[in-house]
Amino acid sequence: MSGEEAPTQHQQPEQEKKPNEPPPAASDAPQESESSPAAEEKPISWRALVLTGHGGYDKMKLQVKTESKPQLKAGEVLLRVKASGLNFAELLGRQGLYDMLPNPPVTMGMEGSGVVEAVGEDVKDRKVGDRVIALSRSGMWQEVVVVSADHTFPMPEHMSFEEGAALPINYLTAYLMLFDVANVRPGKSVLIHMAAGGVGIAATQLCQTVQDVTVFGTASASKHETIAQGGVTHPIDYRTKDYVQEILKISPTGVDIVLDPLGGLDTQKGFNLLKPLGMLIVFGAANCMTGQKKNLLALAKTWYNQLSLSTLKLMQANKGISGFHLGNLIDEQLVSRTMYELLELYKQGKIKLRIDSCYHFEEIVDAMKRMHERQNIGKVILLSEPKKEEEKPKTNAEPGENVEKTESVITEEEEAAEEVNAETD
Amino acid sequence: MSGEEAPTQHQQPEQEKKPNEPPPAASDAPQESESSPAAEEKPISWRALVLTGHGGYDKMKLQVKTESKPQLKAGEVLLRVKASGLNFAELLGRQGLYDMLPNPPVTMGMEGSGVVEAVGEDVKDRKVGDRVIALSRSGMWQEVVVVSADHTFPMPEHMSFEEGAALPINYLTAYLMLFDVANVRPGKSVLIHMAAGGVGIAATQLCQTVQDVTVFGTASASKHETIAQGGVTHPIDYRTKDYVQEILKISPTGVDIVLDPLGGLDTQKGFNLLKPLGMLIVFGAANCMTGQKKNLLALAKTWYNQLSLSTLKLMQANKGISGFHLGNLIDEQLVSRTMYELLELYKQGKIKLRIDSCYHFEEIVDAMKRMHERQNIGKVILLSEPKKEEEKPKTNAEPGENVEKTESVITEEEEAAEEVNAETD
Repeated sequence: MSGEEAPTQHQQPEQEKKPNEPPPAASDAPQESESSPAAEEKPISWRALVLTGHGGYDKMKLQVKTESKPQLKAGEVLLRVKASGLNFAELLGRQGLYDMLPNPPVTMGMEGSGVVEAVGEDVKDRKVGDRVIALSRSGMWQEVVVVSADHTFPMPEHMSFEEGAALPINYLTAYLMLFDVANVRPGKSVLIHMAAGGVGIAATQLCQTVQDVTVFGTASASKHETIAQGGVTHPIDYRTKDYVQEILKISPTGVDIVLDPLGGLDTQKGFNLLKPLGMLIVFGAANCMTGQKKNLLALAKTWYNQLSLSTLKLMQANKGISGFHLGNLIDEQLVSRTMYELLELYKQGKIKLRIDSCYHFEEIVDAMKRMHERQNIGKVILLSEPKKEEEKPKTNAEPGENVEKTESVITEEEEAAEEVNAETD
Repeated sequence: MSGEEAPTQHQQPEQEKKPNEPPPAASDAPQESESSPAAEEKPISWRALVLTGHGGYDKMKLQVKTESKPQLKAGEVLLRVKASGLNFAELLGRQGLYDMLPNPPVTMGMEGSGVVEAVGEDVKDRKVGDRVIALSRSGMWQEVVVVSADHTFPMPEHMSFEEGAALPINYLTAYLMLFDVANVRPGKSVLIHMAAGGVGIAATQLCQTVQDVTVFGTASASKHETIAQGGVTHPIDYRTKDYVQEILKISPTGVDIVLDPLGGLDTQKGFNLLKPLGMLIVFGAANCMTGQKKNLLALAKTWYNQLSLSTLKLMQANKGISGFHLGNLIDEQLVSRTMYELLELYKQGKIKLRIDSCYHFEEIVDAMKRMHERQNIGKVILLSEPKKEEEKPKTNAEPGENVEKTESVITEEEEAAEEVNAETD
């Protein structure tokens, strides 16, 4: 999938209404007025990353689409996407494990940033040329997209497109969990798993906005210096040490809040670590994912070990457990209010977006592998513009770290080897 | 059990260390110095309510104890109890359903108020004559008790003993649930079951300390005017109406917080009523209790219907569930800090203690029946001093309300009839 494919395969999943609609002229063409009748007739082309079926990396295809110019509905805007974010949900989505995603063929991508190219009727607070962040259930991994104006947010002046695309999902998730589901207050302690990941870094930064919060963060040893600088009080190497024992050595009574993206046995460990009146928030099941394809054994193990608690057990323990899933959150006002709060924190310098690496659409497999193998520290960003010849991937990785090779084609032998690893993991 | 029994039966359950120790001279005797060796030799007598076994009202006995004067350990104080509180936990305890209570014979009572009569070594901040509120696992239903000075709290000047005894359990429970487990903030909505009960009234008042909180409160219709005056925005008659439908009519998206003292099917209903990011707190299983004795059928039904949730279900729903049980709460500092916070709210006039009725020890059965049959609006208080002849029970019940008869003896016929009612409930 390293090259561009013929634009014959159109993608119009039924469940999806907002994204995946065609755009006006490409950005290097002269800007056309969105009200010109001539322009509406002229088909336009754009690049889109398409998931063609559930499975491994080979299901990701870069396609060029050609369609007639879109008619915006009232309240919609047409966005030229500059950068978009890669999330764990999309790794699960590729494997067929994310039920909020329409069936393939589908363009994934829940967050992005770009420039408004046209506005529909009744859109008062966005105009052509505005730099905005956009949220969507899917569809952000393409050069142009139609979204509801209500799902766009003006970017602060000095924010880059990469930063804009890095903010929404990770910071909304971290903020809503810490301040709406749980109640982080001065003196509390929080366990953050995968503390060098996107949500982990966001949660660590947001904990700093409250006085005297202790953060326990798990990450492999090579990332400890970075996460400690970011605000993790006690970095813990979960690969070589038992994190439960490490935490109890430092805090014999445990922690007040556990953010759990892992699921399975780790949820039980986290629950046991809670102090009285503590709260565990499950927001993922990363333990489900081992190899690049759906691994039934890992799934079964994670589901089998998934914690199930009776209310009587909760009363005996004086503890609570919550689930969080941004994709399932139907309260749009809450999301919108929180986005503006986050942008305010960004302006105050309390949110510092950490970009791990940027990949062009052509390099999607490298981007996915980097996240899958948990090499990233911070956000993995996708860039819409075509990759120039000889350009290296933009990454913050230190010299000596295991930087991904840039080739995107996976041979069948590599694929088979990876599957074996996954099942013996 | 209407009279006083011979003081032959002493009560020294093994698990219990602090309460149930003998006192100095009764209050009508001349005050003796606590360091007088002569006084230590002289046995003293006091009245105590003793649970003699698990079962119906007949297991409650008023006894007069006579023992030698207690040697206070370091950090302890001797308290002459003036008033104590009756809680649901003691109704369960009598039935053998409260596992925090030592085995019978035992004196129940977790909260009380009175005057310090002696202090042990190392007690710096309490002195003889101080009016204090006291907390204990059990043992407050007697005229004198030994408690840890750390479990006593100075009473504000204008607070009555009845008020002091009404505060701790109900307000600690309500406060910790609303502000430590959940996170009541401006604009939120709360469902309070049994809104005319002790915890219900406390929770309603504490919700008023936050701006713009909507309170849905269930209670029988005759109590609606009172709870509305107390701050319940929408009183709901759970006996004649489906409270789920009533709430959804007013707020189609549900509520943010549910305080659930009921258990069983009501927990499931409450969970379904939650808004996204909402939290249900289970803090009892009142549905277990029907008749005056343990009802195996009600127990089985409540347990069978008790909600059990997987973390995946919680993630799909974006909801949380917590358990709260003050008796299981091992964090003494948290309890102590919260007691001082509550006393501050009392001084500011934000907590107005509502006493439903006061019963002398002789009238314990009437007191228990009043709570069991949910006739009370506010706190049921026990008074240590002997009942004077011809004295009516002190109750706030309106004329025409079903005021309990004062006789405390239950005939076997009444008992049998009540059991039948319970099992067909």
